[in-house]
Amino acid sequence: MKVIVDLCVVPLGVGVSVSEYVAACQRVIESAGLAHELHAYGTNIEGDWDEVFAVVKRCHEVVHEMGAPRISTTVKLGTRTDREQSMRGKVASVADKLATETEPA
Amino acid sequence: MKVIVDLCVVPLGVGVSVSEYVAACQRVIESAGLAHELHAYGTNIEGDWDEVFAVVKRCHEVVHEMGAPRISTTVKLGTRTDREQSMRGKVASVADKLATETEPA
Amino acid sequence: MKVIVDLCVVPLGVGVSVSEYVAACQRVIESAGLAHELHAYGTNIEGDWDEVFAVVKRCHEVVHEMGAPRISTTVKLGTRTDREQSMRGKVASVADKLATETEPA
Amino acid sequence: MKVIVDLCVVPLGVGVSVSEYVAACQRVIESAGLAHELHAYGTNIEGDWDEVFAVVKRCHEVVHEMGAPRISTTVKLGTRTDREQSMRGKVASVADKLATETEPA
Repeated sequence: MKVIVDLCVVPLGVGVSVSEYVAACQRVIESAGLAHELHAYGTNIEGDWDEVFAVVKRCHEVVHEMGAPRISTTVKLGTRTDREQSMRGKVASVADKLATETEPA
Repeated sequence: MKVIVDLCVVPLGVGVSVSEYVAACQRVIESAGLAHELHAYGTNIEGDWDEVFAVVKRCHEVVHEMGAPRISTTVKLGTRTDREQSMRGKVASVADKLATETEPA
Repeated sequence: MKVIVDLCVVPLGVGVSVSEYVAACQRVIESAGLAHELHAYGTNIEGDWDEVFAVVKRCHEVVHEMGAPRISTTVKLGTRTDREQSMRGKVASVADKLATETEPA
Repeated sequence: MKVIVDLCVVPLGVGVSVSEYVAACQRVIESAGLAHELHAYGTNIEGDWDEVFAVVKRCHEVVHEMGAPRISTTVKLGTRTDREQSMRGKVASVADKLATETEPA
């Protein structure tokens, strides 16, 4: 089962700056070889369910190992059985709608 | 690693009423023997990371099997290494603060 | 427009214990007179859109005033135009499905 | 109070394809003149709290007007009082950490 997730890991007890923890998660995702894209409030990842969630778990382990005693994460996750979908396809689909609807008649 | 999650599974393409799908997820959680509590916008579950996420995956499989072609789920998940925490303990901790601070001096 | 929300306010830069901030948010919600219910990973609130979001904003203001320099909040929010729905009704609807489906034929 | 949000609007009761509703929300955001960026699982928006949440409300109104009887939205929202932050700054901060830490000694 393929899944597209939006992962946002928030470490607690390490002050206000969390970018080094987010960077560590990026390296976890990259070393797993999964397609991913960082955005301003999380990272989108696409891949096989088990591989993606192994990465989510590894992110928690790594952020704890870096010294964060507590983590609160938000994940959005989408699956579908009617057809294949990619992160790129989702964005393109909205862009198409925007282009079409703003064209002159 | 123990985790507390808030799981909210939203099936798409099956109309506006989703309670039968949520009920099916409740049965998945119950049959896994995990501590859980249904609330008005999701279900909180606590347990070992791998067991909890096996349940999340099984929920997606079951909801697809019931005929939903697409699912968009939101999960909040918390882990901590400084001490054990339970769903009950989290609620009690807030209740304690509320009781203390509203007591007369 | 009526809305049901699940509000989870996470203060950063104030250590690992966040229950006093959650308790402060509970008092904000209570003083607004909105129906609400604390659970292990957030607080559900129901009411008029503008009143509910005034409360969400007031929670951020209060938590910052208490000394948290940064806040990351997750909100799930549901609206519907086909019929009225309450937090209680949502839980009852799932409970009904569970009761019916587990009854002997 | 400035806020950065990640907005993900999910219409129910309108089938599996939701891109036209997401496109309509994009136009709401654009017409409000707020900085925003579409990604594969939502749209990030930055701006003044009241302006951003007026847009979130308008998105719900527009999606209902388009015929969706029910909407379930997930919003992540961040505020901070210690310093100004932009969507661009958040991404750059993580990119800097990645660049630094992978440089040879």
